[in-house]
Amino acid sequence: MADMLDSDMAKPLLETDRGNSVRTLGACSGETVGILGTGDFARSLATRLLCSGFKVVVGSREPKRRAGTFPPEAELTFQEDAVKRAQVVFVALFREHYPSLSGLSEAMAGKILVDVSNNLEVEVNRESNAEYLASLFPQSAVVKGFNVVSAWALQSGSRDGNKQVLICSDCPDARSHIAGIARSMGFIPVDMGGLCSAREIENLPHRLLPFWKVPVLLAVGLFLFFYLYNFVRSVLHPYLMENKNKFYKIPVELVNVTLPCVSYVLLSLVYLPGVLAAFYQLRRGTKYRPFPDWLDQWMLHRKQIGLVSFFCASLHALYSLCLPMRRSARYTLINEAVKQVKANLSSAWVEEEVWRMEIYVSFGIMALGALSLLAVTSLPSISNSMNWREFSFIQCQLGFVALVIGTLHTLTFGWRRAFDGNHYKFHLPPTFTLTLLVPFVIILGKIILLLPCVNRRLMMIRRGWERGCSVRLTNVNLTTDLPEISSPV
Amino acid sequence: MADMLDSDMAKPLLETDRGNSVRTLGACSGETVGILGTGDFARSLATRLLCSGFKVVVGSREPKRRAGTFPPEAELTFQEDAVKRAQVVFVALFREHYPSLSGLSEAMAGKILVDVSNNLEVEVNRESNAEYLASLFPQSAVVKGFNVVSAWALQSGSRDGNKQVLICSDCPDARSHIAGIARSMGFIPVDMGGLCSAREIENLPHRLLPFWKVPVLLAVGLFLFFYLYNFVRSVLHPYLMENKNKFYKIPVELVNVTLPCVSYVLLSLVYLPGVLAAFYQLRRGTKYRPFPDWLDQWMLHRKQIGLVSFFCASLHALYSLCLPMRRSARYTLINEAVKQVKANLSSAWVEEEVWRMEIYVSFGIMALGALSLLAVTSLPSISNSMNWREFSFIQCQLGFVALVIGTLHTLTFGWRRAFDGNHYKFHLPPTFTLTLLVPFVIILGKIILLLPCVNRRLMMIRRGWERGCSVRLTNVNLTTDLPEISSPV
Amino acid sequence: MADMLDSDMAKPLLETDRGNSVRTLGACSGETVGILGTGDFARSLATRLLCSGFKVVVGSREPKRRAGTFPPEAELTFQEDAVKRAQVVFVALFREHYPSLSGLSEAMAGKILVDVSNNLEVEVNRESNAEYLASLFPQSAVVKGFNVVSAWALQSGSRDGNKQVLICSDCPDARSHIAGIARSMGFIPVDMGGLCSAREIENLPHRLLPFWKVPVLLAVGLFLFFYLYNFVRSVLHPYLMENKNKFYKIPVELVNVTLPCVSYVLLSLVYLPGVLAAFYQLRRGTKYRPFPDWLDQWMLHRKQIGLVSFFCASLHALYSLCLPMRRSARYTLINEAVKQVKANLSSAWVEEEVWRMEIYVSFGIMALGALSLLAVTSLPSISNSMNWREFSFIQCQLGFVALVIGTLHTLTFGWRRAFDGNHYKFHLPPTFTLTLLVPFVIILGKIILLLPCVNRRLMMIRRGWERGCSVRLTNVNLTTDLPEISSPV
Repeated sequence: MADMLDSDMAKPLLETDRGNSVRTLGACSGETVGILGTGDFARSLATRLLCSGFKVVVGSREPKRRAGTFPPEAELTFQEDAVKRAQVVFVALFREHYPSLSGLSEAMAGKILVDVSNNLEVEVNRESNAEYLASLFPQSAVVKGFNVVSAWALQSGSRDGNKQVLICSDCPDARSHIAGIARSMGFIPVDMGGLCSAREIENLPHRLLPFWKVPVLLAVGLFLFFYLYNFVRSVLHPYLMENKNKFYKIPVELVNVTLPCVSYVLLSLVYLPGVLAAFYQLRRGTKYRPFPDWLDQWMLHRKQIGLVSFFCASLHALYSLCLPMRRSARYTLINEAVKQVKANLSSAWVEEEVWRMEIYVSFGIMALGALSLLAVTSLPSISNSMNWREFSFIQCQLGFVALVIGTLHTLTFGWRRAFDGNHYKFHLPPTFTLTLLVPFVIILGKIILLLPCVNRRLMMIRRGWERGCSVRLTNVNLTTDLPEISSPV
Repeated sequence: MADMLDSDMAKPLLETDRGNSVRTLGACSGETVGILGTGDFARSLATRLLCSGFKVVVGSREPKRRAGTFPPEAELTFQEDAVKRAQVVFVALFREHYPSLSGLSEAMAGKILVDVSNNLEVEVNRESNAEYLASLFPQSAVVKGFNVVSAWALQSGSRDGNKQVLICSDCPDARSHIAGIARSMGFIPVDMGGLCSAREIENLPHRLLPFWKVPVLLAVGLFLFFYLYNFVRSVLHPYLMENKNKFYKIPVELVNVTLPCVSYVLLSLVYLPGVLAAFYQLRRGTKYRPFPDWLDQWMLHRKQIGLVSFFCASLHALYSLCLPMRRSARYTLINEAVKQVKANLSSAWVEEEVWRMEIYVSFGIMALGALSLLAVTSLPSISNSMNWREFSFIQCQLGFVALVIGTLHTLTFGWRRAFDGNHYKFHLPPTFTLTLLVPFVIILGKIILLLPCVNRRLMMIRRGWERGCSVRLTNVNLTTDLPEISSPV
Repeated sequence: MADMLDSDMAKPLLETDRGNSVRTLGACSGETVGILGTGDFARSLATRLLCSGFKVVVGSREPKRRAGTFPPEAELTFQEDAVKRAQVVFVALFREHYPSLSGLSEAMAGKILVDVSNNLEVEVNRESNAEYLASLFPQSAVVKGFNVVSAWALQSGSRDGNKQVLICSDCPDARSHIAGIARSMGFIPVDMGGLCSAREIENLPHRLLPFWKVPVLLAVGLFLFFYLYNFVRSVLHPYLMENKNKFYKIPVELVNVTLPCVSYVLLSLVYLPGVLAAFYQLRRGTKYRPFPDWLDQWMLHRKQIGLVSFFCASLHALYSLCLPMRRSARYTLINEAVKQVKANLSSAWVEEEVWRMEIYVSFGIMALGALSLLAVTSLPSISNSMNWREFSFIQCQLGFVALVIGTLHTLTFGWRRAFDGNHYKFHLPPTFTLTLLVPFVIILGKIILLLPCVNRRLMMIRRGWERGCSVRLTNVNLTTDLPEISSPV
């Protein structure tokens, strides 16, 4: 990139076309970049810039003392000199030391200053470091960036890990120039708009999978609840009531009946907000009023909730497949055979039980297959190569199919136990009946939304119609010709 | 990016270097972009452009009436005024309204017009909207783009879904300028070349996984055929001939024997076109004549066919692993044990059956392992980081290994049933014998192609040699020094 | 991109703004690009450049003779003419022919020459082709690039496979200009810095998964060792000592007990170098001295070793799940039931065996779950979207958790067999005891490193402190405010 650079650097090369300039490759070297600061990050930055073909001038208050720690190609000089010689100056200092640069104010006028600093903790009260720097040097173009890169990544040029460099500035030219430098250094610059994004960028290194916190906590909570519920029903009840020792079920069997409940409830929570949003729009008669904040947040977490649901479903499959290999299954089987012989029965076969299991196993595999397609298309590199229609086809249609198959899996697993008093241990209904609540609400909601009268109204609203506002109606027929306003609701 | 912009915008910043310009950050703001149209898309576009640091002027015939619906930072004015003040003008109108802009022809001269329109359906007869716009304004540079982006994605700046913006124009400068704007807005511009690609780009939003249609239909067709075939052999035959009720096999066992057939045939269809192409080249004695269209199409769908094959193989594995956990397997086992006791036999062990199963299970796992490596390396983000040699090593060599192991899995599964009359129900041969047809053709073809005389001729052809054309022979020894012309055949 | 181009091409378009230029779209066409050479690669390059909107002039010694083989839009002319008319010249010739271009030296001055050549084999002694070209034409800016692209990919514009074009040059302007051309052609340019990288780029097409060689060989070696060891203990010993035929275990059971050993040892080898590195730093009292080369290499291969470990673990899971479906398992089970009946025992149940198996199956599933999360986050498209803290949280913390769970899986599987003389066949200890060696060293090392006194010293070293160097101590408190120097140790 290096656009600004090009507009004056490129010329000599083009002029040779007209024959008046003889340039050797040596003279065709990179831009000079300044660095203020001599810490670890400054050193790593200098090393990487030099490797990428830039000239580096490091500004220090004591240039001689610091010389040894930098690569020999980097020139160490006084701060003012460094600033004067470069168009781009990286400020690798701590916020506390920004005021000490005030003497350079004139030299810095018209330059691009890059703020690479981070904060010790997520702070909300003060302005961001970059905005503070910008307020100190109003005649410079301040760019925030490179703070998400570790000095180690700079030094090693490692191919692993994140290569994205988030950049923001109120000056688009400066932004695109720094983006160019980042690209030359092997990073992927991401344009984050104006300097008001600096706070967000400075908080990034403190971020730890923010979109996963709620879904994971939700899954853990559901797991604990259902595990305890199953423990009471399947282990505690036989022990207290029939004095049977079923404690061996704790590590595998209990986990195996708990996981599908978690997975199924989570999957239904992925599709609930869409139904809620549709009813909101219907009640309000417009799509232009924003959803309540909790619903917005919920919709933003759907992908993660879905992936946690898939993870639980996979573990459930793995646990189920392990069941017959266990000693306990083996012993139970042998004992059953022995009992059979002693009772002198020639053939064990309960047709209903056989069918029940064949069917729910079959539904289970299908649901897992559908979920795994959903999970694969959630990979960034795959979802990036799909258009909107394809993405929503898979995520909405196929996802809903997975939910329906999951419901059938649950229902056939339950069969008619829900109506059998023997399965109400301690008066607690079988676990699977609890999990059916949310999905039933969703499927009912979906059916209502598909009723012709409701559906037509919803479609009108989604195309821009508003209740009590006749003007927009003219738009309805036209808008379909432009890219649609379709939310993945 | 914003290259054109930079060439005049960047200067002031550089000039401060020479000390004659005092610029505050406020003056260092973004380019002004015009939008014609006041619909949903225009509104979302304005919002996003403003967020990305651009100035927005919206042109309308009734600017005052529309003012309320746009964000306050966007300036609403008359169309001509909007066009005059911006170098880039987004035309967010319907094709039908393009002629109404004819009065602006002069103001639009030399400007970049961005056509963002879509069509209601895939149209083939007319010229694309963008070419139509270009024909109306021959003095403007028309760029097609942003039509694949939904207004919702524009508004929300959502991180999910597709961020690619396909751009085409006959004017490379305009193209790269719009690409720069797209990048500033957080999208990933994809250069699609000249305006002749506009039709393709306009048809994109109507696309629904086009490369998957044929492979999925093929898989469904094969599934239905083999399922029916197996149903007749395994369920209908015992019912009609021996009056045995085997209907419980419908949900799981029949599916489980059908899936590997589908998977295996699909996998062999991935490698058949390569062999056919080689024979085509051998017969024609040149590589410069294009393949017939059906072969070209087939070769373009290989990746998708392979992935569907892998999906079926995974489901087959899942079904197989579920077999021993089913009630039916349990009852059968108990009954066998009881029978054993009644017959007073002390030990059940058929060495041949044991070996047959150990071996085919083993081959099955290996084939699935090889296929899963193929599937993982098909992920865009992984195949992008491999060079051509690595990609073809995995996709061709490893894929062929998977096919061979799959063949061994099928053969050891079949063992000597193919020669046993009892397995010819209704005179129908066992299913696995049907599936061996295509793979055998391929393996035979591959062996022929590896014969020294055939292989040498093929290598010569692939390096540019043509029958009856001695000139090119001189190239043969040389070309290896330049990037090879290697098709993944 | 096309930055250099823009600086003079963009102007007319902008000038129309001031009303003095009437440009039709026809005049707004692409840059003229020259190609020297008429081979396959030159032809494919010309085709792709034309498709991307460039004008192409092909330079040949015999332009008339070659005319037929190029697309008609490409202009064939004499070499000197082609060079004069283009700013960018692709040199699609063999290294041997470079000296023959010496007559064009003057015409080439100030031009950008793109060296696209490859070598027949990996050469180490000579300078790279690009550096050789640069030495012949010191007044031109030489760019290395496009050699990793196959002529087939150029022609077909195929969407599969690698689209990265590695580019290097000592002239950043030329580099970014060629990067722009690559982007216009639909490739993803990767900036590789100065021309000294040309050798590396020229060796790339000879690369075959270089980072995978050592990990795969390691895995194969470990597999062979453990397989043989298990064969001796589980098949040979019963055959020789008890004359029992256990050869049926060869295809499945032996592989199944070998795979987890390989997987477990490999996983521990992922975390060993980190512990070693920490001890190195502690002993040397500084982080500024580089690690020995073998340790550096080891650390660079950790990701691949981890993924091979995950692959083995997955196969182990698949083999284990197949166990109960085999004939041999079925026969064994029936025989046990029969024996039970004959011994007139009413119930088979060994509580300890039941618990042992429930627990180690449970740990096994958990370890596989943790490993699969590690594997998914290793996908380039996912690791690119994580910040450093998230990446190291998952790869270090979760990976170590997987190692600990794997250790528990192994220990509960072994239970008290390690202390049972009967399990020492031929005096060989059970396999699992061998595999525990490395993990125990790691876990011990980690515990030592977490001791408060050791940990504080290590943290100081990692923040820049050096033994016997009091100056840097002042930095310690400050550095946390800048992006951390954190290696993924």
